[in-house]
Amino acid sequence: MTGHYKKRIYQSKPFVLCKALIKKMHSHNYLPNAFTNVSNLNQQVLQANYAIRGPLTVLAEEIQKALLEKPDAYPFQDIIYANIGNPHQFGQLPITFLRQVLSICQYPALLDHAHEPWFKNIFPSDVVERAKLLLKGTGSVGAYSDSQGIPIVRKHVAEYIQERDNYPCHPDNIYLTSGATQGAKLIMTLLITGSSEGAMLPSPQYPLYGALMDLLHGKSVLYYLSEKDEWNVDVEQFKQAYEDESKKGTNVRLCVFINPGNPTGTCMSEECIEEMLRFAKRKGLVVISDEVYQNNVFKKKFTSFRKVLCDLETREPDSDWDKVSLICINSVSKGQFGECGQRGGYIDIMNVPSFVKDLILKLATIDICAPVTGQLLVDLLVRPPKAGEPSYKLYSQEIENIHKDMEKQCQILYEATKRMKYVTCQEPHGAMYLHPNIRLPQKLVREANESNIEPDELYCLRILERTGICLVPGSGLCQKENDYHVRITFLAKGSEYVERLVEAHNAIINDYEN
Amino acid sequence: MTGHYKKRIYQSKPFVLCKALIKKMHSHNYLPNAFTNVSNLNQQVLQANYAIRGPLTVLAEEIQKALLEKPDAYPFQDIIYANIGNPHQFGQLPITFLRQVLSICQYPALLDHAHEPWFKNIFPSDVVERAKLLLKGTGSVGAYSDSQGIPIVRKHVAEYIQERDNYPCHPDNIYLTSGATQGAKLIMTLLITGSSEGAMLPSPQYPLYGALMDLLHGKSVLYYLSEKDEWNVDVEQFKQAYEDESKKGTNVRLCVFINPGNPTGTCMSEECIEEMLRFAKRKGLVVISDEVYQNNVFKKKFTSFRKVLCDLETREPDSDWDKVSLICINSVSKGQFGECGQRGGYIDIMNVPSFVKDLILKLATIDICAPVTGQLLVDLLVRPPKAGEPSYKLYSQEIENIHKDMEKQCQILYEATKRMKYVTCQEPHGAMYLHPNIRLPQKLVREANESNIEPDELYCLRILERTGICLVPGSGLCQKENDYHVRITFLAKGSEYVERLVEAHNAIINDYEN
Repeated sequence: MTGHYKKRIYQSKPFVLCKALIKKMHSHNYLPNAFTNVSNLNQQVLQANYAIRGPLTVLAEEIQKALLEKPDAYPFQDIIYANIGNPHQFGQLPITFLRQVLSICQYPALLDHAHEPWFKNIFPSDVVERAKLLLKGTGSVGAYSDSQGIPIVRKHVAEYIQERDNYPCHPDNIYLTSGATQGAKLIMTLLITGSSEGAMLPSPQYPLYGALMDLLHGKSVLYYLSEKDEWNVDVEQFKQAYEDESKKGTNVRLCVFINPGNPTGTCMSEECIEEMLRFAKRKGLVVISDEVYQNNVFKKKFTSFRKVLCDLETREPDSDWDKVSLICINSVSKGQFGECGQRGGYIDIMNVPSFVKDLILKLATIDICAPVTGQLLVDLLVRPPKAGEPSYKLYSQEIENIHKDMEKQCQILYEATKRMKYVTCQEPHGAMYLHPNIRLPQKLVREANESNIEPDELYCLRILERTGICLVPGSGLCQKENDYHVRITFLAKGSEYVERLVEAHNAIINDYEN
Repeated sequence: MTGHYKKRIYQSKPFVLCKALIKKMHSHNYLPNAFTNVSNLNQQVLQANYAIRGPLTVLAEEIQKALLEKPDAYPFQDIIYANIGNPHQFGQLPITFLRQVLSICQYPALLDHAHEPWFKNIFPSDVVERAKLLLKGTGSVGAYSDSQGIPIVRKHVAEYIQERDNYPCHPDNIYLTSGATQGAKLIMTLLITGSSEGAMLPSPQYPLYGALMDLLHGKSVLYYLSEKDEWNVDVEQFKQAYEDESKKGTNVRLCVFINPGNPTGTCMSEECIEEMLRFAKRKGLVVISDEVYQNNVFKKKFTSFRKVLCDLETREPDSDWDKVSLICINSVSKGQFGECGQRGGYIDIMNVPSFVKDLILKLATIDICAPVTGQLLVDLLVRPPKAGEPSYKLYSQEIENIHKDMEKQCQILYEATKRMKYVTCQEPHGAMYLHPNIRLPQKLVREANESNIEPDELYCLRILERTGICLVPGSGLCQKENDYHVRITFLAKGSEYVERLVEAHNAIINDYEN
């Protein structure tokens, strides 16, 4: 089976881009046009790595196709895409209130029937009011909005943040985006322009940040999250990594935090956030805090970087805290909405000079505007139905059920890791992932080395071929060398697949030990 | 009034970025963090220019706000954003069929009522079928799709192109995007990596291409469209510009055509397209054809680059035509849909090596996926209701009415230019713009020079302050020097504003002549 799969994975599309093959391609001129000589192409794109949808996913998609044609081709019936936080793909139902509002916004002619009994039966009055308000604010969801985002939505986001943190927030500091990715891109494109510029990035990390640094030709400076300390930032190592890199002449411009963590699920403590902000102030680093999982928290408490920075400004008014530029990222893809495909999010910025704001706006302007329906979802995220309003009860129930389901599923999977040989796992505080550590057998490591793929990648391949479960290897998440992990979303429901995973894992380990 | 406005425009946000001010800012360190020293920032972003939403638009937005507070602050009641092709903003109604399908896709629970009379009354059966088909293809519009786009939509796009051009087209060569911008970005990011690399771009042009070249640090090599020849490509100058630039050592990698033209509205002839393709083949240039206005054609005929390339491959089978890489761009924002805010589009690629396709996919993967509802709109674009289906009649009527309205509005505006002093205008074959030439009085040119702004920008400012009509100055569209134009969309309805424009224009010209 090994040979067969090795061949498959090498034939799978993005795999032809692995280092060995790139080298081979360099020696060819396939066709006499600008595309055909690899050395003509953007080398940063060749180098960029985004493992969440990497070669394993492509292979999984190929297997899925094969299963459609021949249902008994594999010892499972379906692929479980546990590689990506895509809740609706796992059958999570959309929140009724959101979709009712968007349904009317897409087809406002429905409002012509607002007086008819069937309409009142289907669309509660607060849905109608909200749809009307949003339609007034945007005209048509088919019209380009302001590049910074629909004004009324930005106003509501500012109010929401103000209420969450109990500090004022101005709509001018809110930029609506097509999701977290665009937010990160806007800021990083401004700050990183070449290999002499660096960013402090967590290890392990959601690899968007590393991929963007690759594309921007910047230097990723990894700081470690300490697994034995619930994946909290290893503060001393963070500072050391900064100093070491600076000594090499790299201008470190920014630091990125993911809070709650992806893939770790860790909520950063207020103390740690404060320490990081102090360091950023001292070194003049711009701070990005990716807070897309702020509503996916089961243990501990989520604290926003913004709140801590505002506290510090208040407590130490003469300490130049207003000179720390902070960018917080949020999205409608996560939380209980899980509206990934609708592409909506925002950044809120603090202490950013006005000419930099103009540049952020200029970049946003070239993209024209974020999807208007995604912008409307941001509005619904920050202004849920209130107690007493007709949609409140159902909305609250749905949100709570999704939250509980996720917590339960997390628990099932977490407990299961205890039955997996050579696996240890930190219990996550939140987010959508487990990130277990696997002590891989030497034989597997050797086989991987010989095949020129990462050991944890080979492990994921073995899991995929036995169970149809698609994981992300830690090597794609900037983990430390010789330290093996996988990221697995706990969105799939039930325990059947979990048992299959445990069984397959133990079988694979045994196979390689004998 | 001049002083007042000059001050206003300089205070308006993006204007602080004009060259003179950038210089000034270089001498400051505003705050001691990475953001605060302009020289730390991405200089390409500082240089990039996207005039469609430039300082004039920002000023227009400020005036709009001022009008809300004080309705008699200006000699007009409203801003007319004739700077941007945003049909729904001008009250163009969405096509019923599209919105009915999307409304159900947003809230599939509506289908539970499919047997009820009111439902049947509102949603024709083909709408229901289509919504079901698309929901089957995507699961939930809230789920991430494949990064390349929903498979069934790509299949339908391929079928549509095949039918249009009468040559086979494979879904693997279709990439669904969040609009034309993302399509152009994907390709240009791959090919342009520094100042030694160039792209042939039309002058005048929709300035996205120039802005992207700025961001990518590449060299824009302008070729001229000949105004006296209906804005057709000046083929000899095109070739000369290429040769001149190559001699300087620039590696020209690609050429961009906008067909039908933006801002010119010109449909390129089959002969010209053939000549351009022959040149691209000889020089190994990748060809991008931006064909987003293919359904906005009143005069002449739209011919796709793809069709001409396929014809050539057939007629001259041994001439290496399969070595010309071609990328065609389309969007749901234009045509009669005008669904700009929904962010949907696609690229179809031809003769692109498979490892380049992998790289395009990798870049798309980092963006995760295009908005799913935008992808569904692409499906509706390429598979309109057929004769005999319940929605056919209304759909066809709506499309035809929008098309006719636009043609009529184009005619009204075109005829009006004949009454504007020192204005000559080519009648456009299609698209959404007039691009009149204005011989500006010397006094206006001098005043502009003294104020350090472009003469046509000053002209647009004068028009804005008198009429509330927001135009795009030709200087923002990479026009030849000392050759003044404005781009004006013909989407606003009626003739009242046209008369105001004519009157204001003639008054301004007279003012400056006396």
